[in-house]
Parts: sequence; C-alpha cells; structure tokens
Amino acid sequence: MKFTDLLKKRWIEHETLVCVGLDPYPEKFPSNIGRRSEDIFEFNKAIIDATQDLVCAYKPQFAHFAAVAAEDQLKRTIGYIKTKYPEIPVILDSKRGDIGSTAAMYAKEAFEHYQADSVTVNPYMGVDTVKPFTDHANKGTVLLCRTSNPGASELQNLETRDGLKLYEQVAKLAANTWNEHQNIMLVVGATAPDEMANIRKLTGDMPFLVPGIGAQGGDIEAVVAAGKTADGTGLVINSSRAILYASDSSDFADAARAETLKLKVAINAYR
Amino acid sequence: MKFTDLLKKRWIEHETLVCVGLDPYPEKFPSNIGRRSEDIFEFNKAIIDATQDLVCAYKPQFAHFAAVAAEDQLKRTIGYIKTKYPEIPVILDSKRGDIGSTAAMYAKEAFEHYQADSVTVNPYMGVDTVKPFTDHANKGTVLLCRTSNPGASELQNLETRDGLKLYEQVAKLAANTWNEHQNIMLVVGATAPDEMANIRKLTGDMPFLVPGIGAQGGDIEAVVAAGKTADGTGLVINSSRAILYASDSSDFADAARAETLKLKVAINAYR
Repeated sequence: MKFTDLLKKRWIEHETLVCVGLDPYPEKFPSNIGRRSEDIFEFNKAIIDATQDLVCAYKPQFAHFAAVAAEDQLKRTIGYIKTKYPEIPVILDSKRGDIGSTAAMYAKEAFEHYQADSVTVNPYMGVDTVKPFTDHANKGTVLLCRTSNPGASELQNLETRDGLKLYEQVAKLAANTWNEHQNIMLVVGATAPDEMANIRKLTGDMPFLVPGIGAQGGDIEAVVAAGKTADGTGLVINSSRAILYASDSSDFADAARAETLKLKVAINAYR
Repeated sequence: MKFTDLLKKRWIEHETLVCVGLDPYPEKFPSNIGRRSEDIFEFNKAIIDATQDLVCAYKPQFAHFAAVAAEDQLKRTIGYIKTKYPEIPVILDSKRGDIGSTAAMYAKEAFEHYQADSVTVNPYMGVDTVKPFTDHANKGTVLLCRTSNPGASELQNLETRDGLKLYEQVAKLAANTWNEHQNIMLVVGATAPDEMANIRKLTGDMPFLVPGIGAQGGDIEAVVAAGKTADGTGLVINSSRAILYASDSSDFADAARAETLKLKVAINAYR
C-alpha cells in the first residue's frame, strides 16, 4: 500500500495523530534491558509492543543508531515493525540530501536495505536531489520545510524577492512541481505555528510531520489549530523522549504507553 | 593538528589541490579485486596507496557504503588513511544536518567512530545545527553553499530581500558569525564559477571543497580563476569516478595514479 494511504488509514481507523520517535539513548535504558548498543532492539521492541495500537507512525532517528555503530539494531527495529505491524508506516529520520546518483543510493538504503516506508530529506540542493526519492511512488519523501530548532528561522525565514519566505518557497515547490507522485510530506515544527498556518494554505491536504512538541516547547492546541486539514487529520505529531524515558525502571513500557495515550487524547481534544 | 592546517600543509608541501573522492561501486571493480561489498576496502586501499603523494585530501562518500551495509569498509578505509598517511586530511561526505542534540551524535559518528578530520554538513536548519560540528575546534565542518548539481540554483540562487542570493547568505554566515573556531570550509561546485567568484569575495581565504569537475561538466581553468586565494591555494578539487574507474582491469591503481597526476598538473597550470 502507498505510504500516504497507510497513514490516512491509521489516522482514521485508530483515531490517532501520534508518532513515536525512536531515539535510543542506551545510557537512559532501564537496567532490566541493559545499556549497551546491542540492547537497542530489545528496548525498541518493548516500546513498540506497548504503543502499537495508539500510533499513526514510528520514526526511528538514524543518528542514534549510527553514532554507536548499531545499524543492525535499526534494521531489526524496522524489520520488526514491518513484520509484526505492517500497517504502521515507518519514517526513517536520516535527513538525506545529495546529488542525483548519490541520492538514488540513499533511497536504496532507506527503502530497500532498511525497509522504511518513508525518509526525511533536506531540500537545499534542489529538485534533482529530491526526485530519486519521490520516484519511489509508493514510498514517502518527507521534506524539511520549517524545522523546530531555535536557529531554524535564520535561513528558512529569509524573505525572497517575490515576498515569500524560503520555507514557503519549499512548501510551494513541494506541493506543485516536485510532487509528481503525490507522495511528499513536509517537516513543520510545532514551535512555529504561524509558519505552519502559512504552509497549510500553500499545500492543501499535504501531511505534515511535526516535531517539537514537549521538550522543545511546541503547544498542542496551537499546532492542531494551525496545521489540521478540513477532516481533522493531516498531522503526524512526533514525541520521542517524553514517551521513551517516561520511566527509568522496569515499568518503562507501561509508562511509555500511558504517555502515548495521554498525548493522543490531548491532541484529539483539539481536532 | 588542526584540519585546516593539515590541508594548508598538503597544498604547499605536495603542490596539489587534488582530492580523490572514494565513491565505491563494487560492480565497477576489476575482477582481480572482487565485486562484493566486502571488497570495498581492498579497492580503496589500492587507490590510496597509488595516489597518496598526489592528493591534498581524500573524500569517502557515505552513501556508497551505507547503501550496501558496508559501514565497516568505510571505517577500515578511513582507519587505513589515518594510520598509514596521517598527514592526509579525510573529508567524510555524509551531508549531515539535524537539531542540536542529534547533530552532536552525527559529529560523534564522523569524528570519533569513523575518525574523519572533517564532515560535510547541510546548512538549511541554521546555526544551532552547525555548532555541534564546529565546536570540535580541530575538526573541519564543510558546509554546503553552492552545490554542483543541475537543480542547485532552484533554492540556492533565490534572491533575498537585501539583494544577496541564498548561497551568498550562507557564505556570509559561514565566514562571520558561524566561524568562531575558523574551521569552516564550503562546498562550491565547479559547475558554477560565477557564483564561486562571488563566494570568494565574501569569505576571504576560506577553503572550498569543489565537486563537479569532469563528468558533471566543471571547467578547471574557470574554477581556479574564480576560486583560488592570493597564494594560489584555497581549493580542494574533487574527482571521483574519472580516477577510480580509469581502468577496469588489474592495472586500475596505475591508471588511477595517472589520472590523478594529470589532474594535478592541469590544475597547477592555472594557479
């Protein structure tokens, strides 16, 4: 099934816009799991089994695996989701972006080697670096548009000659000329609800991946108001640390479930 | 030794601005090496041994390893250079870029796990995503500024309100507020000599990593004229495929050496 259809099905059938970000920090794992890089898969598996009915997507963050040479744990994590819960879309958050022939290799890495349903991509290099991803018509390409970090506005909010900000130029390209296969979604940070409202106006019903809730300071009510589509969906609202490390004891999976449920309910209250 | 000092020393002592890009395609390897992903290190080693006195840097391209799950071959390749030829700087071309805490993990991946001397980074997300790399004062951060691909101008050449193009905004930030430790260099494509001349004006003696010579159409004379500093250095001119696959027989290392020497001489003729 096409990535965007997987996502829409989850939004509706499970009434959830929550994405759990898999950002493993082995040093934060509870002692019953172990704190080595080889313990990452067991930790992720426990989180996934405890939250699977409450999420619309999972988002493993590549750096957390690569920094400790645990690429095998990433492959096992995605493999587990796609085998046990194939209806849940997986967004590989690796923020790729390179010239065409190299971008094609990154697409192969994400979609074939890791079996992800979609991958985050940086748009700075332009259309020919995005196309090798979007050409995988059934897979999703999640383009950085307006990110959630404090320095995001430095380049992204620069005003261009026709009055649009740089992030609006990206949104316009993503919604129009770049979106031949209707499989692009955008990263729009929860910390920038005004920008999110502008992007929604430019992109119709395009799905947004929304980081920045919680620790980074994003407000749920403002995000839902600014970003939801007419049918009250259109958002994949990510939370990582607040869910994964809700408890540092052996009850961590139950605590993760409770946090995920709390976020689901809080979001749905504003839809 | 600091990355930029390593580079300057090579430029002067070895009279070379050539960087050999290590973009392994196992299917193009000669049959005496083998064509499996496990053969990548042996191929790279032969190329390195044959070209080491002619280069100012090596640039392994991350995707070529990651797409075939050969991260171990990347680690062995860089480890080999840093053990046998420690005076040659290694640029890990992985085009990272993420929020602060994640960028710190990518810095750890590049500088500690892989032992690279510098890493390519995408500036789209702003200063707080660049700083975790530049804070490694002895390491180099190689920011994308004006890339060599056909679609590069789509966003990078957008004109902003104060009359500067987006790539010029990046160059200005890189040369000034972002460059606390004087360890930033810029990616400036050989296919855009006019833009390179503009970037040189904004950045003093900042080193440029220059992809796009050869297959992509960049012209050596135009690049050297547009990009060299007052002392005839300032450029790390990359060539990958034209060197690596100069021959598909058992003489591939000799052929690679001949191509590297040819490029070195051609560049020096215009300095």
